[in-house]
Amino acid sequence: MENFTFDGASRVIFGKGAEKNLTSEIKRLGGKKVFLHYGMGSIKKSGLYDKVIKLLKDGGFEVIEQGGVKPNPVISHVREGIKICRNAKADIILAIGGGSVIDSAKAIAVGVPYSGDVWDFAESKAVPQTALPIGVILTIPAAGSETSRYSVVTNEDGMWKRDVVNENNDLIRPKFAILNPEFTLNLPPFETACGVVDILAHVMERYFSRTTNVDLSDKLCEAVMKSVIKNGPVVFKEPGNYDARAEIMWAGSVAHNDLIGMGRGWDFVSHRVGMELSAMYDIAHGESLTIAFPAWMKYMYKLYPVIFAKFAVKVFNIDNDFDSIEKTAFAGIKAVESFYKGLNMPISLTEAKVPLDKFEVLAEKCDKIGNIKKIDKKDVLEILKLAT
Amino acid sequence: MENFTFDGASRVIFGKGAEKNLTSEIKRLGGKKVFLHYGMGSIKKSGLYDKVIKLLKDGGFEVIEQGGVKPNPVISHVREGIKICRNAKADIILAIGGGSVIDSAKAIAVGVPYSGDVWDFAESKAVPQTALPIGVILTIPAAGSETSRYSVVTNEDGMWKRDVVNENNDLIRPKFAILNPEFTLNLPPFETACGVVDILAHVMERYFSRTTNVDLSDKLCEAVMKSVIKNGPVVFKEPGNYDARAEIMWAGSVAHNDLIGMGRGWDFVSHRVGMELSAMYDIAHGESLTIAFPAWMKYMYKLYPVIFAKFAVKVFNIDNDFDSIEKTAFAGIKAVESFYKGLNMPISLTEAKVPLDKFEVLAEKCDKIGNIKKIDKKDVLEILKLAT
Repeated sequence: MENFTFDGASRVIFGKGAEKNLTSEIKRLGGKKVFLHYGMGSIKKSGLYDKVIKLLKDGGFEVIEQGGVKPNPVISHVREGIKICRNAKADIILAIGGGSVIDSAKAIAVGVPYSGDVWDFAESKAVPQTALPIGVILTIPAAGSETSRYSVVTNEDGMWKRDVVNENNDLIRPKFAILNPEFTLNLPPFETACGVVDILAHVMERYFSRTTNVDLSDKLCEAVMKSVIKNGPVVFKEPGNYDARAEIMWAGSVAHNDLIGMGRGWDFVSHRVGMELSAMYDIAHGESLTIAFPAWMKYMYKLYPVIFAKFAVKVFNIDNDFDSIEKTAFAGIKAVESFYKGLNMPISLTEAKVPLDKFEVLAEKCDKIGNIKKIDKKDVLEILKLAT
Repeated sequence: MENFTFDGASRVIFGKGAEKNLTSEIKRLGGKKVFLHYGMGSIKKSGLYDKVIKLLKDGGFEVIEQGGVKPNPVISHVREGIKICRNAKADIILAIGGGSVIDSAKAIAVGVPYSGDVWDFAESKAVPQTALPIGVILTIPAAGSETSRYSVVTNEDGMWKRDVVNENNDLIRPKFAILNPEFTLNLPPFETACGVVDILAHVMERYFSRTTNVDLSDKLCEAVMKSVIKNGPVVFKEPGNYDARAEIMWAGSVAHNDLIGMGRGWDFVSHRVGMELSAMYDIAHGESLTIAFPAWMKYMYKLYPVIFAKFAVKVFNIDNDFDSIEKTAFAGIKAVESFYKGLNMPISLTEAKVPLDKFEVLAEKCDKIGNIKKIDKKDVLEILKLAT
């Protein structure tokens, strides 16, 4: 096991009616002027927006707002948000939505008190020293951003999709996250499936590691993956199933709040390739993952068959072929593909109707990343070929 | 799944050399006068005391101290600690040791700013409003107190062993916990075994629940139990095995920081019976658990065989006897007993040389507790009979 620091600082308030704790949580953080950040208006249709506004007004808070966060949130919109926050002297950010909204809120949170441009943090030209506190009302279980230290935003100038904060990123972990599974009951099947595969990916990325002697975190990862594999198809087929929605919602946070992956190397190559794919072609983050992950696995399992065989046996209950560890490993990859297909997700670029013309550009963006193997452009090109 | 709030506020710094972060952590919390709290001197023998004193002096902190915390810490010693802290105007408590020391430190932390007597909190006559911040250097993985909201102290006036803080107990969750597995390499086998069974008990208490639709937390609990069952015998037989020590140390925190048991009822009856046993007869907390737990299981499995059969199959890989769920369940209880025996722990009062004369008094102390079944005195007497 490697040394680690775990700082699980987000308070999660979970369950039916959890939003009734909203104003007490904002008060706990000393917030008075709330910057409400949200997406393309689904919270207005669902009535959640009105509910929150009423709670905030009744609580005596001043509300400033910026909606319009798009999937794959962009830095120009973040910069606008920073200006609005500064002008209004907002002292807390309330993000209502899924990962895009929360990630955007996080970038705004570090951008407001910083005199330079917020993208400096993404390029490691500066390290944030302080941030506005962030609260979340989650409506899409997927990114795990509600309790994580990560924020991914696209810079339209070159279509780079990057972590906005590379260092000192505990600053952007939300202070509280309100998770009411009822808010997810009307999520359409495609968004639901995208969330499920994102959650699973977060755990797979922690699991595929060359660090040895990580028995507990291995088993914790297996637990979360097995639960997602069990409940994912249920929420896809029975959108109104509260119990399964609750499992997936909680899994989304547990998958990415870091606890289950402590003491081991993580490998985010597939996520990174997927991120760049979705930034370049505007396909959903979930789709980019179901395309990139099996391809990455097919490229890697020959180098490290044991890691992938363990995954096959322990997570997908594949019968271990002791005569050929590679066969066992490959059966696990096929099981992942079947799982994705069951959620009606594409498992190739062709299926997702992505043109196959920019492999070189994409490979350039993903050069020299990875943990179980540091990949270079050549590797990325091979992985992309396996993704066609 | 039931509604819940999870507030994982302890920062865990884990691994070799983790203690080098001590002074920066104290500074982060604004501490200047450190109240050092420890046990019966093992940290002086091991050299940890000198190391910590040097770190604190070099860091420019004022140090006040109180050692002498005994296993099953007592309220009179806590009251003394409160006086020392007040007189010295200590602003942070650093507990170095295992669960007893940390629990004692927590009681002091809420006692210092309170004008009444600290036992008021145990009797729910008052609710703590504030507390001194607590930091921990853990030397015995067992109680999970280093990241938990719980503090159990014995009141010698009647030998009551109770949670000191019943409400608002997030106040006493340590702000940071330094976990260096190297500090546990010299733990003797008996203390090691007591720790292992305590950790396992914390998970079992969360697992044995009648709450349904808790798939993820079921699987997380199973993961931790399986890892403890795998690594417990290793640390018992190979005290110097760093890797296994690391697994057990991290498992101790994960078992009791609440995350794995969210959204479900917990049943702490065996722990409570064990606690009262250890308070009355001064047997080790671990011994009290290995006596009380199988007895409680033997009493309960006939009422709720499915819960215990699930445990047998999922945690101990017992072959499921579909013709008799009770047989499967019972095989799980025998497996727990075998596990305890493998760690050389007693599984009956007779083995532990506990006199069988005070069952009535003990039953009185454990009346009307429990979750999967609210037990009364009559039940406790039956359980104690099964423990002889």
